Amino acid sequence: MATPGKMHVYLNREIIPLEKAFLHVSDLSIHRGYGVFDFFKIKDGHPFFLPDYLDRFFHSAQLMRLAPLHTKDELRSVIYKLIEKNNIPESGIKLILTGGYSEDGYQPGTPNLIITQHPLSLPGRDQVEKGIKVITCDYIRELPEAKTINYTMGIWLTDKIRQHQAADVLYHRNGIVSEFPRCNFFIVRHDNTVVTAAGNVLPGITRKNILRLAGKRYQARESVVTLDEVFSAKEAFLTSTTKRIVPIVQIDDKVIGNGRPGDVSLSLLDDLVALEIEDNKLNARPQKFYQF
Amino acid sequence: MATPGKMHVYLNREIIPLEKAFLHVSDLSIHRGYGVFDFFKIKDGHPFFLPDYLDRFFHSAQLMRLAPLHTKDELRSVIYKLIEKNNIPESGIKLILTGGYSEDGYQPGTPNLIITQHPLSLPGRDQVEKGIKVITCDYIRELPEAKTINYTMGIWLTDKIRQHQAADVLYHRNGIVSEFPRCNFFIVRHDNTVVTAAGNVLPGITRKNILRLAGKRYQARESVVTLDEVFSAKEAFLTSTTKRIVPIVQIDDKVIGNGRPGDVSLSLLDDLVALEIEDNKLNARPQKFYQF
Repeated sequence: MATPGKMHVYLNREIIPLEKAFLHVSDLSIHRGYGVFDFFKIKDGHPFFLPDYLDRFFHSAQLMRLAPLHTKDELRSVIYKLIEKNNIPESGIKLILTGGYSEDGYQPGTPNLIITQHPLSLPGRDQVEKGIKVITCDYIRELPEAKTINYTMGIWLTDKIRQHQAADVLYHRNGIVSEFPRCNFFIVRHDNTVVTAAGNVLPGITRKNILRLAGKRYQARESVVTLDEVFSAKEAFLTSTTKRIVPIVQIDDKVIGNGRPGDVSLSLLDDLVALEIEDNKLNARPQKFYQF
Repeated sequence: MATPGKMHVYLNREIIPLEKAFLHVSDLSIHRGYGVFDFFKIKDGHPFFLPDYLDRFFHSAQLMRLAPLHTKDELRSVIYKLIEKNNIPESGIKLILTGGYSEDGYQPGTPNLIITQHPLSLPGRDQVEKGIKVITCDYIRELPEAKTINYTMGIWLTDKIRQHQAADVLYHRNGIVSEFPRCNFFIVRHDNTVVTAAGNVLPGITRKNILRLAGKRYQARESVVTLDEVFSAKEAFLTSTTKRIVPIVQIDDKVIGNGRPGDVSLSLLDDLVALEIEDNKLNARPQKFYQF
């Protein structure tokens, strides 16, 4: 077991100390922001919903025509080795696959694979209990189905978010909403139908889980969602791996529903936490029961 | 003087061998594709139009809220030191300013500045003599006024360009053309008016020079340009630092003009080459004549 505090990372087939993990400046992420990544949570030595995250990581890589250095099974084994080495009970793991060392600074080379582990910062209770305000911006992520490393617009907008004392920014194109820079978006209609924006969104794993959980209690579906529908919704919330569910009570200058986190949103958060516990128990069983 | 072949780069206040130039994996270019850059040509130890390129580099940095590590004068001095060290008569220099080492993998830190030098590959005579075919794609670069490192879409489209046996891809939004991933776009109308696409474009230095040169011989201006206007134009061409002017003779399945490089395009290429020679002579004078 590693000494706590001495963080290790995986870089191109080796587990090395974080402070020794460097990429040469010819990497295409540095020259052209080209690469894909993924991120999932760990608890007590086991990732949550790992097969889903690995599927998405491989799908992003394929969309961006980058060859992962490993099979999914190999990658899973590497991830478990890193988890054992770092020994941080609650954390997040990030997989980054870059465009690699490019000869001409434009054409991808053999990708570089970096796996880092991070202490986890969950959203404060305050955000869940009071809900958050978000602003809107007319924008669609490039190639939204792929989890690319391109956050030029998301990071650029952080100043605007701060200026408006908001917590995040909701993308839409001509009034059709899609997603946040790092989260998916849901509304709850007045008949308790749970709807998540379809089209031009990253297929979030938490989004998928919430759709499934919502389907057990309510009507639930993906659909085109307009800003007008959002403003007249009963509830709204965002989902993400780290944030789980955060209720949204204000969008720009419009109050959503009664301005407080809604019962449907909070019931789904309870369901998600229960699902995570269940998934974690399942993973703690001998590994032969855990199939890809 | 350096031994030819042993390339040096500038990285955070030091000139070091290229093979020793690494960034830590926590850099925001690697995590989030966040950074800006610029690129200019060198001949016989002098950059062409350096004040223009430095102005644009600093403007891009400001737009993306990254603090350059130097003043323009300091940067100019560093660039001349690197040119002397590498001693490559004809080459290109690339300045990259990344989002820096980020504590949370999202908020920019202190930027990392990388300056690399590259042998120059000018377009083949073939491209200039025969002209090129390009395809079109409905897309606008994010924050197009800034020269960000984000080329996710441009690189992703290289496969489509190859499939169509084309040389490049012209971006438009709903039929209003803007630019190529790495070049600006011009048309020549039948009255010899030279027009470059205005709006949603990177302010190219070659674009600026060509507008000025064209104004001496013809009418020249920036304007909204539609694809319909392009298809009925007399000539079309692209401009860039490395490519100078390359005539465009086909866009998608439409032939432009008579399908051959036009006189106006070629006359402007001659003028540009002459302007570069003049600029290079000016720079070769004692430096006190060269003011920022």
